[in-house]
Amino acid sequence: MSSQTKIDWSALSVKLHKSYGGKIETVPKVPVTRLEDFNIWYTPGVAEPCRRIQKEGEDSSFDYTWRWNTVVVVSDGTRVLGLGDIGPAAGLPVMEGKCLIFKYLGGVDCFPLVVREKDPDKLIYIIKALEPSFGGVNLEDIESPKCFYLLEKLQETLDVPVWHDDQQGTALVTLAGLINALKITGKRIDHARIILFGAGAANMCAYRYLKVAGAKPENIIFVDSSGVLYRDRNDVESLKTKNPWKYRIAVETNPENIKEIPKAFEGADVVIAASKPGPGVIKKEWVKLMNKDAIVFAEANPVPEIWPWEAKEAGARIVATGRGDFPNQINNSLGFPAVFRGVFTVRARKMSDEMFLAAAYAIAKYAEETGIHEERIVPTMEETEMYVQEAIAVAEKAIELGYARRKPSRSDLEAEIREMIERPKKQMELFIKHGIITLYPEYKELKP
Amino acid sequence: MSSQTKIDWSALSVKLHKSYGGKIETVPKVPVTRLEDFNIWYTPGVAEPCRRIQKEGEDSSFDYTWRWNTVVVVSDGTRVLGLGDIGPAAGLPVMEGKCLIFKYLGGVDCFPLVVREKDPDKLIYIIKALEPSFGGVNLEDIESPKCFYLLEKLQETLDVPVWHDDQQGTALVTLAGLINALKITGKRIDHARIILFGAGAANMCAYRYLKVAGAKPENIIFVDSSGVLYRDRNDVESLKTKNPWKYRIAVETNPENIKEIPKAFEGADVVIAASKPGPGVIKKEWVKLMNKDAIVFAEANPVPEIWPWEAKEAGARIVATGRGDFPNQINNSLGFPAVFRGVFTVRARKMSDEMFLAAAYAIAKYAEETGIHEERIVPTMEETEMYVQEAIAVAEKAIELGYARRKPSRSDLEAEIREMIERPKKQMELFIKHGIITLYPEYKELKP
Repeated sequence: MSSQTKIDWSALSVKLHKSYGGKIETVPKVPVTRLEDFNIWYTPGVAEPCRRIQKEGEDSSFDYTWRWNTVVVVSDGTRVLGLGDIGPAAGLPVMEGKCLIFKYLGGVDCFPLVVREKDPDKLIYIIKALEPSFGGVNLEDIESPKCFYLLEKLQETLDVPVWHDDQQGTALVTLAGLINALKITGKRIDHARIILFGAGAANMCAYRYLKVAGAKPENIIFVDSSGVLYRDRNDVESLKTKNPWKYRIAVETNPENIKEIPKAFEGADVVIAASKPGPGVIKKEWVKLMNKDAIVFAEANPVPEIWPWEAKEAGARIVATGRGDFPNQINNSLGFPAVFRGVFTVRARKMSDEMFLAAAYAIAKYAEETGIHEERIVPTMEETEMYVQEAIAVAEKAIELGYARRKPSRSDLEAEIREMIERPKKQMELFIKHGIITLYPEYKELKP
Repeated sequence: MSSQTKIDWSALSVKLHKSYGGKIETVPKVPVTRLEDFNIWYTPGVAEPCRRIQKEGEDSSFDYTWRWNTVVVVSDGTRVLGLGDIGPAAGLPVMEGKCLIFKYLGGVDCFPLVVREKDPDKLIYIIKALEPSFGGVNLEDIESPKCFYLLEKLQETLDVPVWHDDQQGTALVTLAGLINALKITGKRIDHARIILFGAGAANMCAYRYLKVAGAKPENIIFVDSSGVLYRDRNDVESLKTKNPWKYRIAVETNPENIKEIPKAFEGADVVIAASKPGPGVIKKEWVKLMNKDAIVFAEANPVPEIWPWEAKEAGARIVATGRGDFPNQINNSLGFPAVFRGVFTVRARKMSDEMFLAAAYAIAKYAEETGIHEERIVPTMEETEMYVQEAIAVAEKAIELGYARRKPSRSDLEAEIREMIERPKKQMELFIKHGIITLYPEYKELKP
């Protein structure tokens, strides 16, 4: 933490993106060393897998192509990181980074598509037309509420799983962290009073998961950019058509019709903030009003809604942020790679909230088994074994729910998943050792 | 050749496509071994490359992402190999194979997109919308005449190079082979009488290249599925609207208004067939009517329009086919990987016929320098150095024509191209040596 704060990540990132010319590449995964090999992978041999797919139906393209393990990362560039609507070309570095993480942590093949089209129905048309090319869709950095509509419609329209990481991904990891934070503080989710601070993609979805995990809507209060959300607020009626997802929340939560933020914080056990970069978005004096052993998740990037030390000074016992240089990083990368690893390994037709909750519980369990405390409510991206356990949990839930096309035994499942997760790490080791990937001059200094 | 003819490529291909689960994968090309690395390749660092692209304009996305080296292989599945309209999902094995070849032979990153959309204008809309995602487009296996319209329109509409391999790719390698065949037989292209047998994508484009290379339209006769093409033929008027590309050819060629195929073969020096699978599509007795030292290219797959031994018995001196198990394979894979390698290395804004002719001459020259004879008019895919020389020729032509965004010195150009072409071969060697890619049981038997 100490040495990292001195590093100018922005400058280094610009320099290295340029010198490496991007972050991912495509490579053959079959042996090719001589002319004859092309007779198998290209003409004349390849005609037969084509004929088989034509005869057996589209589903069999999962058997003969990379489709079974390939997700497409799609963005229209309308809400990239905290940068807003910067357009598709400017969003590409993030989407390519996502692809890198998909592969490195989940063994999932992935290519980025940034689309110069903002109309949601046209986006749906495009993605549907491209469907035979991939096994799953990861929506990314798309503005709200369009992202809710897109996710719902695509899930209806496509025959492959669709995921919006800013919704399900963040919510899943948040829930995992919360489960352990509640364990440490001895609080119960069905008794906890929870503030969801920010009503964007992440918290709208977190709300759904919290309910499934046992939280009571009547114990939940939402805060958005206009303040506390209550059913009589003068914009609520218009939400019915403009943002029906939020409308539903307005009528389900905050039964006492609390109108002021400080009042909402009074006696709250948990605040989950996914709103806008701080500091000072959540005030110290508000946290002081919370119950003993308060739990504060301040997930905005690059600066959390309240600095961790301020939250602690105000009495919070557990603080989590979105940053890697503070303890307790609520990091989407703990979620999506293993979720898709599990889904793809059993060739699940769809994904459901039950599978994501299984993932959240697996993350929480792995952390607990390897030791939790105030500064470790979730594991880090370096804990490879967590990904294996999480992917198994997702795959088993898919089998249980009847979504899986394949049903390997538990031991085969584990072996397959472990191999796919370890593969990119072996590749990386070889590439570095043999100079296929060269290390940049600052590489060694970065490790604190 | 002898042992290969016994191998059932179709059966082996089906088995291996299934057991390897496709042919390509995505991997990181930057060092990633610990948490801190994600601060560079993902948040917070990645925000800065995004901001730069937003500020500097879309063109700079070539600097910060894999876009500069990435081509998308697009097909609607309407004319896959010789299989016809088998649909996008069934076409995916071919497109994925193409991506494998792009990388293995050209060092070009590549992902396949098969599209469930046949309308040409909608296809153009989709590809245009996705443009910020890639640096070039390779159209593949799209029915004629739609492919001509698509290529022309996309070249107008997109700001990245567009290539239709069934047109330019085949034509380019055909021309390279013809140049050397003419050398060996001592014939001159501007005197040669040439039959273009088949009026699909490949020959329509070959016609254009032949003219640029010096062939005279008045020495050329086209044959299509209705027979010899002549200006008074009763369908020619309707071609004006239905297929204006072919209409132009009908009025430019065959000035003597020859109507019968045998008459067309009388005194011909060259026949270039890219029509439909044989044997018996071109008759032995027709070849007998040709001039001494006749040149016969029978490029249909999987079976050439006439068996090579039949053409030879009928007096042909040089015979080429599309197959790897006969001498003189007219193989697109000698063309596109190096063309894109050259284009991407200098970040050319567009591709032009002059660049493809430069490629054809480079192929021909490399073959000549390493020894040509009746059974070797072009090199094979195993001759890596040819790709280096061809890519340099394309890149230098792009610089000369003012299409290049980058203008490295000749020695830098060569070094960069060589490194990119050798990289996938080094990766393959490592992967096989260290068991990342395992060899299948029949692997060793395949080499004759």
